[in-house]
Amino acid sequence: MKRIGILTSGGDAPGMNAAVRAVTKTAIHNGLGVVGIRYGFAGLVAGDFVTLTAEKVDHMISLGGTFLYSARFPEFAQEEVQKKGVEQLKKHDIDTVIVIGGDGSYHGALALTRLGINSIGLPGTIDNDIPCTDYTIGLDTACNTALEAIDKIRDTASSHHRVFIVNVMGRGCGDIAMRVGLASGADAIVVPERPYDIKEIAQTLTRGFAEGKDHGIIVLAEGVMDADEFRTELLKYGDFDARANILGHMQRGGSPTVLDRINATKMGNYAVKLLLDGKGGLAVGMENGQLETHDILDLFDDTHRSDETLLDINDEMTK
Amino acid sequence: MKRIGILTSGGDAPGMNAAVRAVTKTAIHNGLGVVGIRYGFAGLVAGDFVTLTAEKVDHMISLGGTFLYSARFPEFAQEEVQKKGVEQLKKHDIDTVIVIGGDGSYHGALALTRLGINSIGLPGTIDNDIPCTDYTIGLDTACNTALEAIDKIRDTASSHHRVFIVNVMGRGCGDIAMRVGLASGADAIVVPERPYDIKEIAQTLTRGFAEGKDHGIIVLAEGVMDADEFRTELLKYGDFDARANILGHMQRGGSPTVLDRINATKMGNYAVKLLLDGKGGLAVGMENGQLETHDILDLFDDTHRSDETLLDINDEMTK
Amino acid sequence: MKRIGILTSGGDAPGMNAAVRAVTKTAIHNGLGVVGIRYGFAGLVAGDFVTLTAEKVDHMISLGGTFLYSARFPEFAQEEVQKKGVEQLKKHDIDTVIVIGGDGSYHGALALTRLGINSIGLPGTIDNDIPCTDYTIGLDTACNTALEAIDKIRDTASSHHRVFIVNVMGRGCGDIAMRVGLASGADAIVVPERPYDIKEIAQTLTRGFAEGKDHGIIVLAEGVMDADEFRTELLKYGDFDARANILGHMQRGGSPTVLDRINATKMGNYAVKLLLDGKGGLAVGMENGQLETHDILDLFDDTHRSDETLLDINDEMTK
Amino acid sequence: MKRIGILTSGGDAPGMNAAVRAVTKTAIHNGLGVVGIRYGFAGLVAGDFVTLTAEKVDHMISLGGTFLYSARFPEFAQEEVQKKGVEQLKKHDIDTVIVIGGDGSYHGALALTRLGINSIGLPGTIDNDIPCTDYTIGLDTACNTALEAIDKIRDTASSHHRVFIVNVMGRGCGDIAMRVGLASGADAIVVPERPYDIKEIAQTLTRGFAEGKDHGIIVLAEGVMDADEFRTELLKYGDFDARANILGHMQRGGSPTVLDRINATKMGNYAVKLLLDGKGGLAVGMENGQLETHDILDLFDDTHRSDETLLDINDEMTK
Repeated sequence: MKRIGILTSGGDAPGMNAAVRAVTKTAIHNGLGVVGIRYGFAGLVAGDFVTLTAEKVDHMISLGGTFLYSARFPEFAQEEVQKKGVEQLKKHDIDTVIVIGGDGSYHGALALTRLGINSIGLPGTIDNDIPCTDYTIGLDTACNTALEAIDKIRDTASSHHRVFIVNVMGRGCGDIAMRVGLASGADAIVVPERPYDIKEIAQTLTRGFAEGKDHGIIVLAEGVMDADEFRTELLKYGDFDARANILGHMQRGGSPTVLDRINATKMGNYAVKLLLDGKGGLAVGMENGQLETHDILDLFDDTHRSDETLLDINDEMTK
Repeated sequence: MKRIGILTSGGDAPGMNAAVRAVTKTAIHNGLGVVGIRYGFAGLVAGDFVTLTAEKVDHMISLGGTFLYSARFPEFAQEEVQKKGVEQLKKHDIDTVIVIGGDGSYHGALALTRLGINSIGLPGTIDNDIPCTDYTIGLDTACNTALEAIDKIRDTASSHHRVFIVNVMGRGCGDIAMRVGLASGADAIVVPERPYDIKEIAQTLTRGFAEGKDHGIIVLAEGVMDADEFRTELLKYGDFDARANILGHMQRGGSPTVLDRINATKMGNYAVKLLLDGKGGLAVGMENGQLETHDILDLFDDTHRSDETLLDINDEMTK
Repeated sequence: MKRIGILTSGGDAPGMNAAVRAVTKTAIHNGLGVVGIRYGFAGLVAGDFVTLTAEKVDHMISLGGTFLYSARFPEFAQEEVQKKGVEQLKKHDIDTVIVIGGDGSYHGALALTRLGINSIGLPGTIDNDIPCTDYTIGLDTACNTALEAIDKIRDTASSHHRVFIVNVMGRGCGDIAMRVGLASGADAIVVPERPYDIKEIAQTLTRGFAEGKDHGIIVLAEGVMDADEFRTELLKYGDFDARANILGHMQRGGSPTVLDRINATKMGNYAVKLLLDGKGGLAVGMENGQLETHDILDLFDDTHRSDETLLDINDEMTK
Repeated sequence: MKRIGILTSGGDAPGMNAAVRAVTKTAIHNGLGVVGIRYGFAGLVAGDFVTLTAEKVDHMISLGGTFLYSARFPEFAQEEVQKKGVEQLKKHDIDTVIVIGGDGSYHGALALTRLGINSIGLPGTIDNDIPCTDYTIGLDTACNTALEAIDKIRDTASSHHRVFIVNVMGRGCGDIAMRVGLASGADAIVVPERPYDIKEIAQTLTRGFAEGKDHGIIVLAEGVMDADEFRTELLKYGDFDARANILGHMQRGGSPTVLDRINATKMGNYAVKLLLDGKGGLAVGMENGQLETHDILDLFDDTHRSDETLLDINDEMTK
């Protein structure tokens, strides 16, 4: 084993740079070279490579986004394209690859492993929608960003006795909404994982105002519906001032939190050690705070399981 | 002069609480009583009054929103309603009033003065759209909130070589957009105060990508159009990935910045002194960093003038 | 079981208010009353009680500090003083107590239980120095506050090619230092749990500068020594510009993070359920992300165990 | 005029990078080249030059510190050293220079101008201690950083009914203390510009606690004395729990605020225009929000004047 190639794929997430830094520093510590592959699998096939040094990655730990860039590249599903990628790697003496990204990127990591390039996948997405892990790099930062925004929104909600319906990210997964909802003391958390009764929510809000509450907050996962749509529906059952708010892409950026930096560092460090052990085709995850690995194949047969106790607890806080 | 009534009106803004605190503490320092009027002019007419003490307002300096609440109350345009308000004030021994709010609230302050209750208006709105002042309480906090969001959005824009069109608040006024646009290094700032050429903006962005820029940011005042609409228009003239983002109501909340707290404190302190001097019907403003007063009547004949040199400078930064 | 008394004890920590809110809301949800005991065990004995309602605790989730106040009260070690406390509780129909605080507060909770008042202890301290739990309420916020400060310090360190020795809190425990050190990419983490070689640290820094690094950061747990002292020692072995910085008490305050709010809410909710089950004399903890309970007695025989793998990983990042 | 050299000198300040960016972009807009001089006047003499492009400075607007680095270099007071610097500039076709820094850097700018290199000084320091300007680049960010820290400290002060004495930066100047003190609602602001009565401060605090205040904050300029020393003195006159806290170097770093970015951009833009007009030996300042210039010589005969009305107002808030 000589050189590790590293790329980021899919949507960017805070902590990706910290993971790249950890891979680089651990690799150097173990006498290995590291090559950054820019623009994900597209750059892999195009040979857009840049040598990474300790100095280059040193400041990266605090930066959001991915300095290696990311790009969509569905063409990598084709075996002939994958083979071109392998050629590029071999031409540059890269014999192992670490991929940081969402579930799409695991297909690429598995394909490379099957073609002889041991590859490890790290879960990098704010959405927390990857099977076999209860944490993905970026989740904690995204949740804190959303929470700070909702804390500000609460100021104006309280000043005007308003209800705000706040759309948070997560694609099909409600994990950001569950965390942010519980942490913001939301009157309702609406997620794809559990049915909801919009009439009941309207009644909870109406009762809250009657009992002296000066505002209402609903945290709505984007995977359920749009906040404007929800607002229209909600106002059929309640007579209060309600506004819709979509937090948007700022949830993807920003300097990573302590947790995201630590976990990204742990995962990057661990991935190098797996490669040193001759492993490939593995997905690194975190379960109950502990690093785990699974065959990437297992991920395809599985789905992400959310910690729905957060919803149960919130129900007790609000009903 | 015995007791000052104080109310907040219109949209809430960070620093309103700091202004109420300053009024309260200055009044107490000068041997006067202070009464908080809840829910703006609606509460004035309803007699929703609460005595303010130093202890009650002490922690307020750091809180966003308005703890006195605000409410719409167009009925206060009618003289008979105004007279009911004056009755309430007299019944509670309140002989002067300070109103913190947007331009609508100045009509109320003038009406009260004409009916014998000397009243002073303080500019409280994030929109900076009030005549005869180049600063309104809340502007600086809103701008910093928007800037922090755009800094995060830039992370994801850069990671994916994207353009983001970011809608900031300001109603008909482009001041937030100008400040935030210049401060974020936006490729274009689009405001109601100045014509723009969407084709030229698309060309600037296209040229930027060609020259190696990895993202684009357009800061768009809400008074011009919706970010989605702008995006559709923009993509007619350029071939890049563009997303629309509406920052929304978090711009109204949050703990006020140093500048907003200082200016709110200065203005609240000054307003009490004007009342002690027997003045009424005045609007407090800030021009070139100095406190000023104008007859409220003058505001109705005037319009707010923006510092458009910010746009000129940004043009030099981007073209 | 009729009414739960709740108090905070020892140093304040972000998330204590969220825990009080969770206890209050869960209790009300289960038909129980809740009484806030102000100023810790001192207030318990003095009968400084305040009824808590959903409305009163609603906004508390986002506030740092403890609105119930805390106070030192070593007198509570005496049984006669404890009995006075029990009398006060009985007089006010309080038959169970939840204590949020550091290790000192567990003695009080156990004493109350032995005197017939079932009591549960929640770990509330930023220091993470409590046995039988790998997380204490406030830890995550304190770490993020320290990290943000160090990120700022790094700006000025880099500008001047300086080394900064940053003292972080934790009393005798190095957990804050380990987390913040790894997350900030520190060149060295110095904690009470592990011996260190100051000469080697100086050499690492010297080598870093020689290889092109533009700054150095040492994260130093307060339990080891003072930053100024460390600086003097360090400069015996290296020729660079070094400054000492003590982050201080801001680490104790601030709005809690998502993680602290969620965990505080989970723990508060869980404590009420334990009381409903007739349990007492228990300490709630979190191990590998899961809620656990231990007999308070077990805590006294045990010591907190840190996750020292963080140090091992940091060694690989820096050496 | 062909090429502008730009350097940062003295302590770093947030917004320096924004100023460098503005100089670079304005220069390019006007067909001029820009050369970054690293490590201040030391780098000037050593010829440590780097060509600046729009792409290179683009992301810099949001970064704290100075990417051009700064360094002490008292040798530049000697004319022969200055001449070596001029030689280096001529060798690299640099015929004008912009210096961003504290008052020391103006001497260098004047020396260069006298030797035929037109040079302009921009006020870059958080301390606001430069004559002929009421604003220096970095002041607003430093104040907001200090304010956020004090807001956190207030949480823990309130929880324990404590007084905190908080040392803020500013060298011999009390401007940061005045601003932060007024904005944090401090019970006392102690600065070099005005005598203070420590006994009276202790009495104010004692009275505050008696009247129900739950904490005390004293903002103390570092130019007066050390917080520990002040604490010892204070406790001679009052019986309360008091702690000293030195905020330290984090005040120098961090992403600049809107105001600092805008003012830095305005000043950088303006400096290029002054050079284009053939001007040199000038200091750019800001008075009442407007850009001004003064002969650098005038600065040497003058001292900075603080806005002491902030102290007068704070007295009315607290006494």
